[in-house]
Amino acid sequence: MTKWVYAFGDGKSEGEQGMKNLLGGKGANLAEMSNLGLPVPPGFSITTEVCTHYYANNETYPSDLKDQVARALREVGELAHGTLGDPERPLLVSVRSGARVSMPGMMDTVLNLGLNAATAEGLAKITGDARFAYDSYRRFIQMYSDVVLGVDHAHFEEILHARKEDKGVELDTDLNADDLKTIASDFKKQVENELGRPFPENVEEQLWGAIGAVFGSWRSPRANTYRKLNNIPEEWGTAVTVQAMVFGNRGETSATGVAFTRDPATGEKLLYGEYLINAQGEDVVAGIRTPQPISKVVRERQGGRKPSMEEAMPKAYAELHAIGERLEKHYRDMQDVEFTVQEGKLFMLQTRSGKRTAEASLKAAVDMVGEGLIDKKIAIMRVDAAALDQLLHPTLDPQAPKLEIAAGLGASPGAATGEVAFTAEEAEKMAAENRSVILVRTETSPEDIHGMHAARGILTARGGMTSHAAVVARGMGRPCVSGAGSLKIDVAKGEMSSGGVTIKRGEVITIDGAAGKVFKGAVKMRRPELTGDFSTLMGWADETRRLKIRTNADTPADSAAARKFGAEGIGLCRTEHMFFDADRIIAVRQMILADSEEGRKAALAKLLPMQRGDFEAIFKEMAGLPVTIRLLDPPLHEFLPHKEEDIADVAKASGISPDILRARTIALHESNPMLGHRGCRLGITYPEIYEMQARAILEAAANVVAAGGAPVQLEIMIPLVGFKTELDMLAGRIAAVAAEIKTEKGKVPAYLIGTMIELPRAALRAAEIAETAEFFSFGTNDLTQTTLGVSRDDAGSFLGEYLAKGLIARDPFVSIDVDGVGELIRIAATRGRSIREKLKIGICGEHGGDPASIQFCHDSGLDYVSCSPFRVPIARLAAAQAALRSDTKKP
Amino acid sequence: MTKWVYAFGDGKSEGEQGMKNLLGGKGANLAEMSNLGLPVPPGFSITTEVCTHYYANNETYPSDLKDQVARALREVGELAHGTLGDPERPLLVSVRSGARVSMPGMMDTVLNLGLNAATAEGLAKITGDARFAYDSYRRFIQMYSDVVLGVDHAHFEEILHARKEDKGVELDTDLNADDLKTIASDFKKQVENELGRPFPENVEEQLWGAIGAVFGSWRSPRANTYRKLNNIPEEWGTAVTVQAMVFGNRGETSATGVAFTRDPATGEKLLYGEYLINAQGEDVVAGIRTPQPISKVVRERQGGRKPSMEEAMPKAYAELHAIGERLEKHYRDMQDVEFTVQEGKLFMLQTRSGKRTAEASLKAAVDMVGEGLIDKKIAIMRVDAAALDQLLHPTLDPQAPKLEIAAGLGASPGAATGEVAFTAEEAEKMAAENRSVILVRTETSPEDIHGMHAARGILTARGGMTSHAAVVARGMGRPCVSGAGSLKIDVAKGEMSSGGVTIKRGEVITIDGAAGKVFKGAVKMRRPELTGDFSTLMGWADETRRLKIRTNADTPADSAAARKFGAEGIGLCRTEHMFFDADRIIAVRQMILADSEEGRKAALAKLLPMQRGDFEAIFKEMAGLPVTIRLLDPPLHEFLPHKEEDIADVAKASGISPDILRARTIALHESNPMLGHRGCRLGITYPEIYEMQARAILEAAANVVAAGGAPVQLEIMIPLVGFKTELDMLAGRIAAVAAEIKTEKGKVPAYLIGTMIELPRAALRAAEIAETAEFFSFGTNDLTQTTLGVSRDDAGSFLGEYLAKGLIARDPFVSIDVDGVGELIRIAATRGRSIREKLKIGICGEHGGDPASIQFCHDSGLDYVSCSPFRVPIARLAAAQAALRSDTKKP
Repeated sequence: MTKWVYAFGDGKSEGEQGMKNLLGGKGANLAEMSNLGLPVPPGFSITTEVCTHYYANNETYPSDLKDQVARALREVGELAHGTLGDPERPLLVSVRSGARVSMPGMMDTVLNLGLNAATAEGLAKITGDARFAYDSYRRFIQMYSDVVLGVDHAHFEEILHARKEDKGVELDTDLNADDLKTIASDFKKQVENELGRPFPENVEEQLWGAIGAVFGSWRSPRANTYRKLNNIPEEWGTAVTVQAMVFGNRGETSATGVAFTRDPATGEKLLYGEYLINAQGEDVVAGIRTPQPISKVVRERQGGRKPSMEEAMPKAYAELHAIGERLEKHYRDMQDVEFTVQEGKLFMLQTRSGKRTAEASLKAAVDMVGEGLIDKKIAIMRVDAAALDQLLHPTLDPQAPKLEIAAGLGASPGAATGEVAFTAEEAEKMAAENRSVILVRTETSPEDIHGMHAARGILTARGGMTSHAAVVARGMGRPCVSGAGSLKIDVAKGEMSSGGVTIKRGEVITIDGAAGKVFKGAVKMRRPELTGDFSTLMGWADETRRLKIRTNADTPADSAAARKFGAEGIGLCRTEHMFFDADRIIAVRQMILADSEEGRKAALAKLLPMQRGDFEAIFKEMAGLPVTIRLLDPPLHEFLPHKEEDIADVAKASGISPDILRARTIALHESNPMLGHRGCRLGITYPEIYEMQARAILEAAANVVAAGGAPVQLEIMIPLVGFKTELDMLAGRIAAVAAEIKTEKGKVPAYLIGTMIELPRAALRAAEIAETAEFFSFGTNDLTQTTLGVSRDDAGSFLGEYLAKGLIARDPFVSIDVDGVGELIRIAATRGRSIREKLKIGICGEHGGDPASIQFCHDSGLDYVSCSPFRVPIARLAAAQAALRSDTKKP
Repeated sequence: MTKWVYAFGDGKSEGEQGMKNLLGGKGANLAEMSNLGLPVPPGFSITTEVCTHYYANNETYPSDLKDQVARALREVGELAHGTLGDPERPLLVSVRSGARVSMPGMMDTVLNLGLNAATAEGLAKITGDARFAYDSYRRFIQMYSDVVLGVDHAHFEEILHARKEDKGVELDTDLNADDLKTIASDFKKQVENELGRPFPENVEEQLWGAIGAVFGSWRSPRANTYRKLNNIPEEWGTAVTVQAMVFGNRGETSATGVAFTRDPATGEKLLYGEYLINAQGEDVVAGIRTPQPISKVVRERQGGRKPSMEEAMPKAYAELHAIGERLEKHYRDMQDVEFTVQEGKLFMLQTRSGKRTAEASLKAAVDMVGEGLIDKKIAIMRVDAAALDQLLHPTLDPQAPKLEIAAGLGASPGAATGEVAFTAEEAEKMAAENRSVILVRTETSPEDIHGMHAARGILTARGGMTSHAAVVARGMGRPCVSGAGSLKIDVAKGEMSSGGVTIKRGEVITIDGAAGKVFKGAVKMRRPELTGDFSTLMGWADETRRLKIRTNADTPADSAAARKFGAEGIGLCRTEHMFFDADRIIAVRQMILADSEEGRKAALAKLLPMQRGDFEAIFKEMAGLPVTIRLLDPPLHEFLPHKEEDIADVAKASGISPDILRARTIALHESNPMLGHRGCRLGITYPEIYEMQARAILEAAANVVAAGGAPVQLEIMIPLVGFKTELDMLAGRIAAVAAEIKTEKGKVPAYLIGTMIELPRAALRAAEIAETAEFFSFGTNDLTQTTLGVSRDDAGSFLGEYLAKGLIARDPFVSIDVDGVGELIRIAATRGRSIREKLKIGICGEHGGDPASIQFCHDSGLDYVSCSPFRVPIARLAAAQAALRSDTKKP
């Protein structure tokens, strides 16, 4: 005979903490608390297997379920001194759903089940409190009708409201027992009117109605969607927990509340929470009465006048405090508990791990290691790596007054305040005058890079999480709000407007790049505090992880920031961003517009010393750590102006005829630039560009060493290789430049030559490419674009709908598509190492800072991940977590 | 002891035909002819192993080579009654290179080697012909200096010219023995001046100089490049063949010539070739004297007056004719021979398979089966499938007078004559008046499709072999010249100019889409003759092949053409081309511009009957054969106008405000449309489009059957699937439409649902996709674009350079990139069939008509290939050849 029902109560239990799969999280924890001898009202859980059976058998129950429930109910009645439906000694119960994980869309709770006309009267008699009895009754009818019978609860509000009007009172508490009895009766009529059948008086019917509603809610559309999005198998099912009621609304010695064992915002160790005297659970959340703090110290800090639980109910408080300590020791984690005090006696109704902010999770984890509660490994696993982002950027003071003028996507975290600039040039000019700038554009393009660099923050009216603005801003660590659709920008007039507010050039705004909000004026900020706890945890993570963490950095400033965050090298230094600086772009354009190799070489000769200087500065910052430099990648037309008005300006500035400039721009136009004449294809058709870059890199490395710096671990990276022949030809050209330098100077720095694997073909042909390449770096942005055939810039028009409809679980540009792109990465790593055992392999796309992707990289045996400077700590922690998870998986 | 030297002559030989790898093609065939007892001047071949040794050992010869050569030379001398360097009985020899395959860049021939002052004098005595002796001598010096010593031959021409001027004569033949002796002496002085050392008098030195030059030429830059491009391993090496000279320039009973055993242009069985009396081999090609036909019938046909060899030298002709028959029987193929008649005696100097036109190869192959010379399998292998193209389109009469005005790429074969139109609208209007039109555009876009359909041929000033114009033209079977860069098109003025010629709208031009030429006026054409031989060979191919051949056809006319060419179904029917017709585009645009699902549905309702009608007509043509219909694929912006002037026109025609049109066009703009909102992504975001198409298809199939037609083998294809979830959702939508139709009409036609595999992710996830897909069709165009990260439209700027530099061997858009794209195809086929054993798999890209790609498809176990109608016969033959090649490979 299958056991379908597990009882608990009176200091013992048929279940325990480990049986979440069978009893649901709530049921298992109630069983466990009961086992611990904590004061838990008796009850029982109907297992998830019943749910499975229910759906497998045309929504029917196992034949022996009724008997098992009846027996368990009897036991509960014995412990609680009552019987369901007995007017003399009525037993009331709560009915709740409980899956393995908490899940929106599931039925929540029915309280006070077991009340009908007769038992309500009985309850009034026993308690001597008719008002309590009828208030409980009308609440039960309201709740049951709403969540079990599906009756619109607005009607109940109307009835309640009408009664108060009749009586000329305002508050529910002003209604007396008779009023509430009438209301209960009106509620039942309303239900009968609406459903065409009466509200169930039979308590058995009430109970099975509630149980059926729980199981039915497992397949509600909302639950289905949530499961699909979160990869929760439908087979898991839900459990149902039935528990004897206790009442926090039995007078001034009764109360109900919720508490955390530590402050969920800061991690401070104290009972943090709220309680309400003479109230039932739902009153705490309903917001009609204001709950009071549990601890005295919290009340004092908040300046509250009403007594805390510690003051009003010192005995119950002391017991709760002791239970909190006990639960933390037992579960080795901060707990979130629900409790009720009935006539002075404390009852525990729920315990679970408490949700917390990044700050709190960090402090609690480190503190608990100090308290001997958990070890370092558990501490590492406890902190959500992605949430560290919150700690690394300034944030808006939540208390500060604000006037929100627009909202968009939180594209790059952090907050920034500054004067509005509408062009990159303005931004640069204002920044040069030491003014803080927010660059506001309809959307950004590579030509805006210098302005984005100069700005404190970026705001765009168009573009998604992976738009140019978003990607570049995250790379630079600049806060960014993208796609603020309500913004109307009029560059000519020098103003923008949204929501009836107009902001002129130079006026101050504040953006919140985490929340995606835009505010008028300056908003007070909180600076990030990378406290002792932060570096303690990072130290533990560093001891644990196997993956190296590098950074994507194009400038000395980025490099310095990344090193402060713990980067162990540069995994991607993009040389093209250097090309956009105002003093270089002219030479770059002359190079592009030259009609002969000689003309190009003359322009490149001007760029050589500038690039060499850039590299010297970066090498100095990195002080001997590995630096991977990618040779020129974007198509040349990105460096030319496209708009007619810009063409005239650029022509003037560059001393080139507008006609020639226009013609060249048209000639270079591409239908699909992502798949066009870029990457190593530029190196093949214009070898002199890569030769100049190789020379700048090698000479810079030599100069740094000559000036007493550490030898650079140089890695020269050829982008967009699809064919081994491409890499061979370019590696040969670079070797020739190195040989020239050796001839000129007597020696030349050592370097590795490698390639980005960013095309499916390169991944497949990795074995032969590894004959020449000494390292691989997966360019997962482009590899995702080509493998999925999705342009990052254009995906906005459908990817959101894919996520919303559940066609994909996560944005593949945020988290690696493990099944598709991931397989290519594994193929490439395996094939590459089959030829070159020590092949160094990393990734340098946006995914390098995403914890799930880092787990994948660890599991795939990569050597390092490279991410933007501000994500380096996230990556360090995620890499440690990945190592711990993989250890666990091993036998 | 290794045998380095293989002798032949006097009816026997140490080598034979099968030893091409060791003796080179030339040496092996000479050995074989000698074995056959044919009159071959004695000689010997130095093996390719000597070449290998030479390069492996620092350019030195095996120690015993000299002895072996000396012995062989003695034997040659005995048979030829002479000794190298003996003034009394001088032996003269030719020295030639000979690799396994003929290869440009290799040293060709040195004739008359063995002449010096003494032996020249001796030759004069023996022959009694001093002029012959010194003419041979000066020719030898000239030839040897050029090909062995590397002396610029222009100087020799100057000396020769100066001598003729001195004598006041014009022709070489006007010079006498003394003149030639002086010239030889002057030649030698010139060599000494230039090289600083005298021309070698020592005949041994001459011989080894020539042998060394042959081996040296194996690694000439030109030979290296050719090998790289044609995948010829360097290890193969070349052989050297040394052979006793015979002389066709010993008077009126001597001659030299070349002959084919069948007419290489038509395949007709007769000795076809040319000869010259009293001449050496080089004179035939030099073009100073005009050679005469060998056969009398050819002379008569050409109206020549000088006698043919058949008439002038009947005995030698009869012997040559008999030898030709013998060689054909022996080699079972048409031969291309070189011969010399020395004083009435015929000598054979070379035989090899003769190159021929497609027409000739077809006729010869079929005739030879009739003659019992070869079997059907060999006949199938003999015809170059790709060359069949020549037979399937009208071609320009090579004899017709022409005025070429421009040249571009031969983008789609065939010739066409017509009046020039500069816009699609003009073309359509003129065609409606029954005029033949050539549509001339700077480049074409999808908006021009209707004009391209209306035109007889297409000419563009921009774009490569894979430009829109080229691809669409090939698909339609329209001749096309693309990228004729010299064309200046002025649409406003209605004229184009090139090479100083101006053509106005309505003037006639002729294009040759095979050669890529443009001519003024009408040029006389030859119609293709799909003769009895053609269908005979096709019949044999059909018996042999395993692959089915389908066609890519979007219209009833295409379908009919393809069936005539033998298509066994439609592998790709693109529904979007139907959207461009003038009567539909308005409704299409209304659909795109609708701002609600209702608006779209209203517009789609107008399109439904039109699409249904299209499908009915196609289904009727295909009469029960399978038809794969791809649902809408291109991004919606392709249907909207982009240029400001077009926007105004379209807005007027569609009754939509230009502002709305412009805004929508901007909103739909994509950075990389190839990777954008297209394919099934349209079906996901606008399900009503695919629902309309599914309804049109299913209703059309039902109507055709109701009208007594054969049941359609319907295959509905969802494009651009990357995720199984996409296919599942859309398959569900289509099933819902089918269910609706079933409800409405009581029954619904059966159909298969499948997908294009055109994204790397789809190939990798083929197993799960095959859970839903009942067939796969590889869209190899897009799969190549994504796997290689190369946009077909933009590749022109670098792919040509890749081919020229040998980075890639073949254009991956013409012939499948077997290593990259090919691996994905094999992965997808294997994984797909692991789930669904009978999964139907084919390809429908441009590659479906490429013989090498067809071989790959056969080897990979695909079920069919689909190609444009005009390539169907090519595919039929290539599929048969693939089957035969694979059979040969099997043990």
